[in-house]
Amino acid sequence: MASTSAPDKVRLYELVLDNGCSASPYVWRIRYALAHKGLAWDPVPLGFSEIAAAFGGRFKTVPVIEHGDTMLAESWDIAEYLDRAFPDRPALFAGPAEHAMVRLTDTWFSAEILRKMFGVYALDIHDAARPQDRPYFRQSREQRLKGATLEEFTADRAARLPALRDAFTPLRAHLSRFPYLGGSAPNYADYIALGAFRWVASVSTLPLLAPNDTLRRWIDRGFDLYGGLGRDPRIKTLFE
Amino acid sequence: MASTSAPDKVRLYELVLDNGCSASPYVWRIRYALAHKGLAWDPVPLGFSEIAAAFGGRFKTVPVIEHGDTMLAESWDIAEYLDRAFPDRPALFAGPAEHAMVRLTDTWFSAEILRKMFGVYALDIHDAARPQDRPYFRQSREQRLKGATLEEFTADRAARLPALRDAFTPLRAHLSRFPYLGGSAPNYADYIALGAFRWVASVSTLPLLAPNDTLRRWIDRGFDLYGGLGRDPRIKTLFE
Repeated sequence: MASTSAPDKVRLYELVLDNGCSASPYVWRIRYALAHKGLAWDPVPLGFSEIAAAFGGRFKTVPVIEHGDTMLAESWDIAEYLDRAFPDRPALFAGPAEHAMVRLTDTWFSAEILRKMFGVYALDIHDAARPQDRPYFRQSREQRLKGATLEEFTADRAARLPALRDAFTPLRAHLSRFPYLGGSAPNYADYIALGAFRWVASVSTLPLLAPNDTLRRWIDRGFDLYGGLGRDPRIKTLFE
Repeated sequence: MASTSAPDKVRLYELVLDNGCSASPYVWRIRYALAHKGLAWDPVPLGFSEIAAAFGGRFKTVPVIEHGDTMLAESWDIAEYLDRAFPDRPALFAGPAEHAMVRLTDTWFSAEILRKMFGVYALDIHDAARPQDRPYFRQSREQRLKGATLEEFTADRAARLPALRDAFTPLRAHLSRFPYLGGSAPNYADYIALGAFRWVASVSTLPLLAPNDTLRRWIDRGFDLYGGLGRDPRIKTLFE
């Protein structure tokens, strides 16, 4: 991305895969959020194993943004900061009720969809990481899996795909009424969901969706936003 | 409710139970929506079997509102109408994004929660109906149950209660951050959810929630809104 003029200059610490793609559903939310606000950013790619050291232990996860003297982690904190720091740019949240509603949508989405996505793609993420990051990724994630290896955790993943596809039902119903989750225009709820699909597309070796899934038009529309921000020849198709 | 002056006069056709309570999660949304806008309404109670005849077949469900020459069914159409017809009253939807986000919340809530609630309380609704409405309620609902009786449909309902309680998880997480689903103030998402709990409370013979459920504070706060709109000595407790 081209740098912006100094006061608007934002540096975004991202997660990088072996193929150079930026992964992480949370980083993607912020990429879309910055684009929504019309802000360019300088990307700083970090591998899984480099994050803690990059911030002297202050932050353990990306996205992290740097803007002037401010350094901030956690995608929700960053999104809220962007609206405060750039009030003359298009708002991510038109008001407190939209903010609360998107947050509720995220709570549902993270519990019902992101968690299931990790269950299907955990080994793919490992395999897509840079070789030097794989041992760290494996160790840190397997600690949370109660002793299961990534291979054991994902062994029956094809059998779990139908439940994941079913979990999208509310999105499909909504998108039969509106072009975007946010209505006639995309909002942060779209960026949350698009970021998750974009993350999967960065690593997937198992197509997430059936070819005729009605989510396709919205995903295409979403990946095309902001000059094709979601497009990248290195990503995999989401469709069988 | 006291009548308002003529231009604001709204008549609300409601569903009435044998104990005189208004049931229907959809009627309750509109009761809360009218209260939110500071509009009084004249309630017109109808039993299950009276609805079709009351509107000459034009509407088959309540709520129906009558305002001047306008008669309108379907709670979403009514809520949107109220913001158009009373623009100087507090808005139900501050803008199109909030509207879309609440609609997405409703899509999730109706599929994941209302459907499960009906599975637990279908026979209780029948038993709470006026005696003359019960045959109609039974016949119309059993048609949708592929031949099962209401008794068969709800026979294992206690075993299904844990899954229903689990379905509230996103609400609990959200309400650990905000006093209302809508954030610092209640919005139409609160009325959708409160309306469902109020409906269950009107008919329940099986407490929906554990005594220490963290939803309790929000339910109490919600039932207290607008001078205790949700309060009624005839309803049952939602808590074990």
